[in-house]
Amino acid sequence: MPPSVPPSPDPPPEANPAYAVLLARMRDAAVLASAGFALAWDREVAMPPAAAGLRAEQAALLSGRVHALRTASEVGDALAACEADAALMACTDAAANVRNLRRDHDLALRLPGRLVAEVAQAGSLAVHHWRAAREADDADLFTPWLQRNALLAREMADALGCSSAGDPYDALLETHEPGMRAAELDGLFGELRAGLAPLLAAVAEAAPPETGWTDAAWPVEAQAAFGRAVAARMGFDFAAGRLDVSTHPMCVGVGPGDTRLTTRYDPARFLAALHGTMHEAGHGLYEQGLPKAERLGQPLARPASTGIHESQARLWENFVGRGRPFCGWMLDELRRAGAPVPVGLNAETVYRGLNVVRPGPIRVASDEATYNLHVMLRFDLERALIRGDLSIADLSGAWNERMRADLGVEVRGPREGVLQDIHWAMGSFGYFPTYALGNLYAAQLWEALREAVPEVDAQLARGELGGVLAWLRAHVHAHGRRHSPADLCLRATGRPPTPEPLLRYLDSKLRAVYRLDR
Amino acid sequence: MPPSVPPSPDPPPEANPAYAVLLARMRDAAVLASAGFALAWDREVAMPPAAAGLRAEQAALLSGRVHALRTASEVGDALAACEADAALMACTDAAANVRNLRRDHDLALRLPGRLVAEVAQAGSLAVHHWRAAREADDADLFTPWLQRNALLAREMADALGCSSAGDPYDALLETHEPGMRAAELDGLFGELRAGLAPLLAAVAEAAPPETGWTDAAWPVEAQAAFGRAVAARMGFDFAAGRLDVSTHPMCVGVGPGDTRLTTRYDPARFLAALHGTMHEAGHGLYEQGLPKAERLGQPLARPASTGIHESQARLWENFVGRGRPFCGWMLDELRRAGAPVPVGLNAETVYRGLNVVRPGPIRVASDEATYNLHVMLRFDLERALIRGDLSIADLSGAWNERMRADLGVEVRGPREGVLQDIHWAMGSFGYFPTYALGNLYAAQLWEALREAVPEVDAQLARGELGGVLAWLRAHVHAHGRRHSPADLCLRATGRPPTPEPLLRYLDSKLRAVYRLDR
Repeated sequence: MPPSVPPSPDPPPEANPAYAVLLARMRDAAVLASAGFALAWDREVAMPPAAAGLRAEQAALLSGRVHALRTASEVGDALAACEADAALMACTDAAANVRNLRRDHDLALRLPGRLVAEVAQAGSLAVHHWRAAREADDADLFTPWLQRNALLAREMADALGCSSAGDPYDALLETHEPGMRAAELDGLFGELRAGLAPLLAAVAEAAPPETGWTDAAWPVEAQAAFGRAVAARMGFDFAAGRLDVSTHPMCVGVGPGDTRLTTRYDPARFLAALHGTMHEAGHGLYEQGLPKAERLGQPLARPASTGIHESQARLWENFVGRGRPFCGWMLDELRRAGAPVPVGLNAETVYRGLNVVRPGPIRVASDEATYNLHVMLRFDLERALIRGDLSIADLSGAWNERMRADLGVEVRGPREGVLQDIHWAMGSFGYFPTYALGNLYAAQLWEALREAVPEVDAQLARGELGGVLAWLRAHVHAHGRRHSPADLCLRATGRPPTPEPLLRYLDSKLRAVYRLDR
Repeated sequence: MPPSVPPSPDPPPEANPAYAVLLARMRDAAVLASAGFALAWDREVAMPPAAAGLRAEQAALLSGRVHALRTASEVGDALAACEADAALMACTDAAANVRNLRRDHDLALRLPGRLVAEVAQAGSLAVHHWRAAREADDADLFTPWLQRNALLAREMADALGCSSAGDPYDALLETHEPGMRAAELDGLFGELRAGLAPLLAAVAEAAPPETGWTDAAWPVEAQAAFGRAVAARMGFDFAAGRLDVSTHPMCVGVGPGDTRLTTRYDPARFLAALHGTMHEAGHGLYEQGLPKAERLGQPLARPASTGIHESQARLWENFVGRGRPFCGWMLDELRRAGAPVPVGLNAETVYRGLNVVRPGPIRVASDEATYNLHVMLRFDLERALIRGDLSIADLSGAWNERMRADLGVEVRGPREGVLQDIHWAMGSFGYFPTYALGNLYAAQLWEALREAVPEVDAQLARGELGGVLAWLRAHVHAHGRRHSPADLCLRATGRPPTPEPLLRYLDSKLRAVYRLDR
């Protein structure tokens, strides 16, 4: 006889002791991991340089302990007991947790603890040497560390072995974007590239937009206060977070009540830092929106994927922050805060200035259209590195050549080239493509949001950002890892991920900025 | 036949595999513990308030894991194998490590892991509530947390059971000052109190010294730059450390290459922060002088005791920083740095101003003589709490009564009374007496140092602080925990700890400041 009451999303705590054990062990693992996240933040913001060696040892030890908790036979036994309990698996939330933890456990079991610790230690140390090499603008100083990170990543990929296509890169992608494969990205990125080409050609032929003004100097303290005010207005809770300065802007979701953003200020240009802060605050809102306080350690309290995480950052930075309605409010606010904006400047001009297409060497400084080409370049190069089709010795040359071919940009040195990003230094391969995926997701979410909240433009023009946040909370943040990224996208937007919304969005924006229809 | 070559202090690495295992496990424990130290610093300096619960869970989990490493049967077996190896134990350094690790292991085995984690969690959480109670100047808000900390401390004392005299407080003292017992402190403190009484009476009857000026307002940024310069001049290595701001000034020796000081600035009075910074930098120099890079996790790289640690802080703060020669250099430096010191002010006046005896409610703001009475009060009260002779409900009243009786001071509220220190909030009982012990050690070390380095006054008058540091490095820092605190004192000064040097020093200083011999 079927139960008269349908099973709830969450089982009662006493439903299955194995489920309680599973969640308790995962909570321990998450608390231990959160200590590592706090130390990773500290490494970029506060740590004295002489502590690099100790910090790498701490990272190795903590990673090893977290791995041991995740791979414990007690966890395997608990998982099997949960999977065998049909009543438990009929609870949607519990089933989502068990399904995800089974995947994590099986993947973790393929990795020797020694390798996990070594990857953490090598990454922590390499960041230190990356910073020194960047300082000296000398890629050779970083070569041995990059070599080691790439070898370890390949070893990890071989151990995980997720690919049915025989591409070791797929395993690294799986750690960031569950279910995604490199061949699928080839398709998505191919479409995106094909769609961008005529648009970028049209822009290159068009007259430059009348911007008059793009950016100006403003003391760093004033920039920081303004950035903080905008992040707070977006809904970022500073009682449960911070905003600091680091070389490479980042967001670290340490754990419940502790989400930390960093940015960097250029005293000569204040809009760069502002949009960087909005980007990181977008990440931060996702972290703060996950139900960590109640569900720490459960997949339901973890972000769906790196790509979905990036979508949140890019949505706030670009779709909101470089959108026409927000520009009007921002200009008024900047004037109120005493920013040095010219007297005659109007919102339309600010909007155009923020959306000029200007191919350059730096990814994070690039416009919304060419940004995707930066990402594809990195995706192709790191995939070739991992497959063994490209050597570290040839990497810098290959980078510069692709910059020339894809963007028409001459790289003047490794700081502008292969040393510009922290990711490979941290040992993070397979992360880069999620930036372009994030743009895809963001555009698709943005279309759905605008359909569901038709008054959003009017809200943004008044600086009311709560409507955007509420929709994202309900359709993205609240779900954690309940659905796969593709499924989350489908449920939130009615369609699986596709480049069309992004191409539509860019086409419409650049037509307006460059007056292509005149 | 005896070996023809006498055994070296350190055995060769291959001498005994058990010794290698022992040191490797202790290094792991130290690395894990160092993560906890970094998080403790973060809690006071950076952590968002909403993260207090997570931070307490992290502290509990890390403490539990460190405890598990220290109590592992593998460690017990390795210790036994080392102790049975006569050649190894003939190496002085190895023997000191093994002897200390045996003590640590045996003490740790008496504590259930559950209790260790609970103490860490309760302490981390209570600090948060202490801060709120202090803010509200309401001791009742803190009562339940203090109650819990005191009960846990008593439980710990009973489990450790170090006392042959039946005093549970002895066990807590043992965790801070190996070998010290409360009855011995009664003797030392009794002598100290008896010696201070006539001196304080003479000072109370004497005319106030001509100070004219004691302190002034100076912008916090200027104060911080000056304090930083003085710490660097003392020899504090900022490439391996930091100086930040926190409610309760502290020094956290995270690990090799990472020693962090905090201080607090009063914009209205700059000398207070300066001497606070010198105090913490004194702790920091000890941490940086321990051979942690080579010996992390070994007792030889750990401070000898909390009392010896305090002696380093008090020596720099008072014996150097409030001494006549340093005052002259400091006044010139302050003038050079643009500090608002009156034109006619001379070094003698600054010296007198820094050494006025002025009984007040706040320990860290008190003069060198009455400071010891603050410590004895806390020692007596916390000992009574742990023995069960005093209830938390009566604590605040007992505190205020003792302040009246011992110092003639009326406490105006709990912020000035029972809530003024962080120690009980952190669950640290048995720490307070080490402050007065530190004064004793400092005076005794100072006498020996002055005898060994007769030109030290001339050096200090020129702002040359390297002579003091070199002597401390050689006689205190380099030894770590090689000797017991009492033995270290004996070896460095020729005598076991006694209050006489401190009483001689205070007598001589106050005679000069108050012109008692006129």
